[in-house]
Parts: sequence; C-alpha cells; structure tokens
Amino acid sequence: MVSSKAVRAVILAVGSELLATDRLDSNSLHLTAILERHGVELVRKGVVGDDETAIEREVRRAFEDAELVLVGGGLGPTADDVTREGCARALGRELREDAATREAIARRFAAMGREPSANNWKQAQVLDGATPLPNPRGTAPGQRLEVGGGALFLFPGVPYELAFLAERDLDPWLAARAGGVARERRTLRVALRPESEVDQQLEPAYVEFGREWITVLAAPGEVRIRLTAAGAADARARRLAEMAARVRELLGEAVYGEGEDQSLERVVGEQLAASGRTIATAESCTGGLLAERLTRLPGSSRYFPGGVVTYSNAEKTRLLGVPAALLAAHGAVSEEVARAMAEGVRERLGADFGVAITGIAGPDGGSESKPVGTVHVAVAGPGASLGHRHLRLPGDRERIRWQASQAALEMVRRRLLEVAARERR
Amino acid sequence: MVSSKAVRAVILAVGSELLATDRLDSNSLHLTAILERHGVELVRKGVVGDDETAIEREVRRAFEDAELVLVGGGLGPTADDVTREGCARALGRELREDAATREAIARRFAAMGREPSANNWKQAQVLDGATPLPNPRGTAPGQRLEVGGGALFLFPGVPYELAFLAERDLDPWLAARAGGVARERRTLRVALRPESEVDQQLEPAYVEFGREWITVLAAPGEVRIRLTAAGAADARARRLAEMAARVRELLGEAVYGEGEDQSLERVVGEQLAASGRTIATAESCTGGLLAERLTRLPGSSRYFPGGVVTYSNAEKTRLLGVPAALLAAHGAVSEEVARAMAEGVRERLGADFGVAITGIAGPDGGSESKPVGTVHVAVAGPGASLGHRHLRLPGDRERIRWQASQAALEMVRRRLLEVAARERR
Repeated sequence: MVSSKAVRAVILAVGSELLATDRLDSNSLHLTAILERHGVELVRKGVVGDDETAIEREVRRAFEDAELVLVGGGLGPTADDVTREGCARALGRELREDAATREAIARRFAAMGREPSANNWKQAQVLDGATPLPNPRGTAPGQRLEVGGGALFLFPGVPYELAFLAERDLDPWLAARAGGVARERRTLRVALRPESEVDQQLEPAYVEFGREWITVLAAPGEVRIRLTAAGAADARARRLAEMAARVRELLGEAVYGEGEDQSLERVVGEQLAASGRTIATAESCTGGLLAERLTRLPGSSRYFPGGVVTYSNAEKTRLLGVPAALLAAHGAVSEEVARAMAEGVRERLGADFGVAITGIAGPDGGSESKPVGTVHVAVAGPGASLGHRHLRLPGDRERIRWQASQAALEMVRRRLLEVAARERR
Repeated sequence: MVSSKAVRAVILAVGSELLATDRLDSNSLHLTAILERHGVELVRKGVVGDDETAIEREVRRAFEDAELVLVGGGLGPTADDVTREGCARALGRELREDAATREAIARRFAAMGREPSANNWKQAQVLDGATPLPNPRGTAPGQRLEVGGGALFLFPGVPYELAFLAERDLDPWLAARAGGVARERRTLRVALRPESEVDQQLEPAYVEFGREWITVLAAPGEVRIRLTAAGAADARARRLAEMAARVRELLGEAVYGEGEDQSLERVVGEQLAASGRTIATAESCTGGLLAERLTRLPGSSRYFPGGVVTYSNAEKTRLLGVPAALLAAHGAVSEEVARAMAEGVRERLGADFGVAITGIAGPDGGSESKPVGTVHVAVAGPGASLGHRHLRLPGDRERIRWQASQAALEMVRRRLLEVAARERR
C-alpha cells in the first residue's frame, strides 16, 4: 500500500444470526472509526451467513474492490464457524496449525480447569503466511495476512473482542502505512428546510470545495450538512473552518448548530439559559411533544416553568383563556387561536415567552380548506410582540407532530437571536 | 420464480452516510421480516455508497447470487442520488420518465405551496419496463422490475417510507409467489417487569413447546415474548394459539397486548374509548411525555381533554391547586404531592381519571433519601378512589422518563381492567 494513494477497504461480517430480523452488525462501526482515523476509504460493507462458499466468494469480490479486507466473525470452535476455510479458498492458501496459538488455547482451558474438545483445536488453524493476533479476551485469535499490496484481517465476532484486537493490531498497522491522510468531519444542522432547497443554496460551496467533500442528509424536519477534509491535522482543521464559514455564509442563520449529537431543543435551551428568560408551552396537535423536548435536557427547570396540553376547545378556554367566540369564529386550527394560546400560556404561567402549536396531525380531521398537516405556530413575547407561522407539513401523524415541534423550536430560536442582537446594540 | 424451490434474496442499502461511524442500515431488518414471512432465504446484505459504478457492480453481483434483489436508498432528488442510474446500467436498461409519477410530484409540491426544483423531476425517472410504486409518504417513488425469473425492487431510504412500500408492495407480491413454507410469529408484551422474572415464569412453556420457539426480549420498560411456529398455515395458527394461551396463563394480566407494533398507550387508549371515559395528565419529571404518548393515536381527543406539565412548584400550586404547605412539608417528589396532582388535574379538567407523575429524572437533583430514579405515580378516579406507586427506576434521564410513563400507563390499564370487571358483575 502506497501512502500517496487513498487506501480502500471492505468490511465483511460473517454470521447467519446477523441475517435475522433482530440483529445488526454493529462491529463495522468500530472498524469504520479506525479506518476514518487513518483516511482509509470504506467502499462498502456486507453481511454473509456461515457458509464457506459464500465467504469465499465475498472475500474474492472484496479484494476486487479494495486493498484492505476486514472480516469479523466465524472464528469460533463450532462446525458452522468456517471463516478460516472460506478465506483460505478465496486466497488459494492452505491452513496450518500455529504452535503458539495451540499452546495458548491449552493454557486457557487449563486455567478454567477444562479439557479442550476436538473442535477447539480448529481455532489454532491460521492461513499460511498469516500472523496470528492473540486474543486475551476469548478463545478465537485473529489473523493478519499481507497479500499483494494489501492485507486481510480476521477478527472474532464478539464485539468487545473485535474492538480490542482492532485497536491493538489494526490501528497501529494502519498508522504505520497511511501516513497523514486522516479524515475529519464537521456536521452543520438546519431545521425545517427542504433538502433540495439547501442543496441548491450550497451549489457555490460544491463548486469551490468539490462535491465529494460536502454531503447533504435529510432527516425528518431537518437537514444535516456534513463536511469532510483529509490531510494533515493543521490543513484539515483550516479546510473545515473555511468550508463551515462558507456554508454559514450561504445559509445564514438557518444553521442552528453543529455536531452529530446536537439538537434544536438543546440550542434553544442554551439560548434561554444564557439570556435568563423563561418559556411556557401550549400545545394542541403535538400533545406534549414540545414540552417533552424542552425538558429532555438536564437543568431545563431553569427556563421551563411548565406547559399545558389543551386537546379540547373547552380546555383551550379553561386553561388558556382563549375566548370561546374566537374558537367558534375561526376554528381551533387558526392563526387567531394559535396567537391567543401563546399569549394565554405566557400570561398565566408568568413566563417571558409563550409558544403555541395548534394543527391537524391526522389521519382524520382534515378538510378542503384545512387539510391534514395544517399547523399554526405562534410565539408571544418578549413584551407585547407576537410572531406566527402557518405551515403545511407532509407525512403521517408522527412526522407532522415532529415537524410542528421543530417549527415551534425554530421560531423560538430565531426570536431569541433577534432579542440577543437587539440587546447587543 | 418457481414456488417449489426456495427463493433467495440479497438486500442492498445505498447511501454514503450508511458507511459512516454512526449509522447502521436498519431498513434491512424490516425487509428481512417480510422475507422470513414468506420463506425467502436472505443470502447476504450489503451497504454501498452513493456511487453509480459501485451500485452497478453490486446489483450485478446480487443477481449472480439471488433471484430477488431489494435496494433501499439513493432515490432522492439530489445529485448524489444515483441508485436509478446504477441499476439501469447493471441491467442494461434505459431510464424513462413516468408521466403519472411526474404528476404526483407536481401535485405534492402544489399541496405544500412550493415549486419543484429542476432536480425534483429526477424522481419521475423509472427503469424501462418497471412498475412505479407510488409513495404517498414522500417524493421518491419505489420501483419493481421483473427480470428473468426474479425481480428488482427499489425502495426509498427513509425508514418509514420504505416500511410502507415494502408492506404494501413487496409482501403481497411474495405472498402470490412463495407458497406454504412460511414461519409465523406472534409477540406478547409485558410492561415494567424484569426480563429474568418473566423468563422464570415462562419455564413451563419452554418445557412444553421447546425453548427455540419462545424468545424473551428486553426493551426499556418492557419485555416482549416472541412465539414462532413453522409449517402449514393451519398447523402454524393452531400452534401459535396454544402457545399464546399458555403464556397468558402463566403471566396473567401482566400481558398487556400482542403485536410488534402494539404499545401500552394504544391499549390504554382503546380501553378508554371502549369505556367512554376520559383521562387528564399532570406531569413533572416526564415533562409531557405521558400526554405525548396518549395523543400519538388518532382519535385520542375522544378520551384526552388535556394535561399540564408543572415543572416548577409554583405551577403545581397555580395550575393544579397542590397546597404550597404540602409541597413544603413533603417535597415535590412525594406520594402526597403525586396524589394531590392526580386529584387536581382530574378535578380541574373535569375528567373521569387523573394521572400524575413526579420524580427525579437526573442526572442532578438526587439525594440520599430520594436518589435519581425516584418516581411517584398516582391515579385518581373513578370517584374518590386513589392509587399510588413508588418506583426506583434505573438508567439515565431518558430511560427514567420513559419507564415512569410506562408505569403510569400500566397503572391506568390495571385500574381500567378493575373498573371493567366490576361493571361486568
């Protein structure tokens, strides 16, 4: 492997249980993190059952696509553990018994006061030319075989054994070869904007930095913009800073935060905590989701005194003081009622801000003029100011509710930005 | 495809984000469940990036190994969505625009009051000879192309869109072809009981039916008991009925429902709807989660007038009438306050039942006598009756909140069972 060219890798998980309805191959995430650290490109990953012919075929295909092939699982002592055999056939190598590994197995069993059974010795078989990777956490050792310009690594499938061997053996092996091409990522987040719109706005950044370094990912009610840079640590950090600055320039205040584990409720919570202000919620169609999101964060009692869920018209009047005449004139799902709910909850709970959501989450309750997905969001405060937004949200009940809560949080975030800007002046 | 021979399938997930360190392809689980239902053998699954050449190569390989190829993802409107193009190349087909799909896209955008951008029209492209699978939940339609003895299915990558299309289009298509080798499952659900306890209680059923047919799976705040039977439809159904009856006999009323998509809030909602009674919620540490769960169901306005989230002591007094003296004497997290909250919300919202949760979700706020995880749940009604439960829940903030909402729903469910039994007498 030459360090000036990007190394490519394929990850293969072996195990019939990984093809069932309730298991995912999470080992690949650990291996991917190590690959990413060293700038190795993961071209694909796969899961195959405990089937010698299938393993042989997949390992062969993997080497057609990549220089580095990482296989996890199928190294146990039972008859269906056939990863060793499948790999040997794929690479046209014999299996031979490794004396040191045999001895380690004998020692391990002696320590447990047990006799190895005939099939336990299978685990001492290594591919001809391979280096065994001792496994102090289990009976299945790993193996590393350098082939042509690349290498095949075999890891045990037990997650904590694989993680241990990968860190101990794969990481330094790559470090010695990759040489400074590590990749780094930054994720910017935007709420409530369509993916295609964000994509178009980012066009100048694609041209400037290259499309392969900027990925736009849609999630319900939000879009993530993932920036990637490769190279030496200094250059990488500089490049990511340039890219992030350009994206923020193109998207403006729509970027609400950074990081894979960031969330809109966290950003709003931090704004509220920093400004020393409080907010109260009044919800209809979201049924408490907005309050629930605002209280996900530890310490939210500093800025959230409480909220109400008023599902019926009677409760909108009783708990929030929305005039019955207003409800009768405009209907519960209307700009007027959203505004009255926001003002009502702000006043009754003595908060700085009141935020209200009323809408039709469906599947029933829609009409020609107010179809399912119609949502009104209003924010009251600070002082007498009032903001309102009318949305038509796509998707099913769950998605509509989620997006409505995103819309409310996004409105509050913008309002808090305005307030902060005004105060700085 | 011949029904007497087992059909083989390959699942391929497309998306560069699925090759990152933080995402797994969970769509394949849903597809696998459908394959299993019809006795289709999943030979392997794979993940590939948004790379036309790689997609072409993987689809070609998939058809070398299987008759049925299921591809998810890469059907979006952006430039990196190239699944259509890769598949067209793999199968040597042209892409053509589907008029009905184009129209559906136009309608969808019109309904949202937006203009489609140029790249949105990409989504109207289908493989020559393919049947478009309309997607009412998003803009990316799926496609089904019958090739040779098999078929290629393209699904959008958004999980709930893929799940919808797979159930609507793949399941019946397989049902028409597979014939008689199916396995069938039934899932029974139990809330708030430790897995080990349920496991022990099920021992006689393991002995009677064989351990491999009964699986106990733990999830936060609940346990699922999965029953499996194989063979002809009649025998399968009979066997599952026998197993389910035995499990219900062993676990009694702890079994709250059946089905993978069953939920405690749905069962409680159905009980309330059937009894014509209403419930109001008062929440502290769960911050609205209980109300949010009760309103996940369409039609919940019949039995849920509303609820309050009283995070601060002042709001507990103001919105629920909890005496300040009671709060001072016992603290907000106490049996006395939980009872007063339940009674207060029941009375103020004029509901048949009031349910209240107060507790310490952490990570801060715990003490020696009231550690993090201390939760009090109370149910008021019908009439003057009051129930209370004191819990010490394990886990982090999110898990504590979830389990507290499970506990409240489970208490309400039991209370409604008692009421229904009394009324039958």
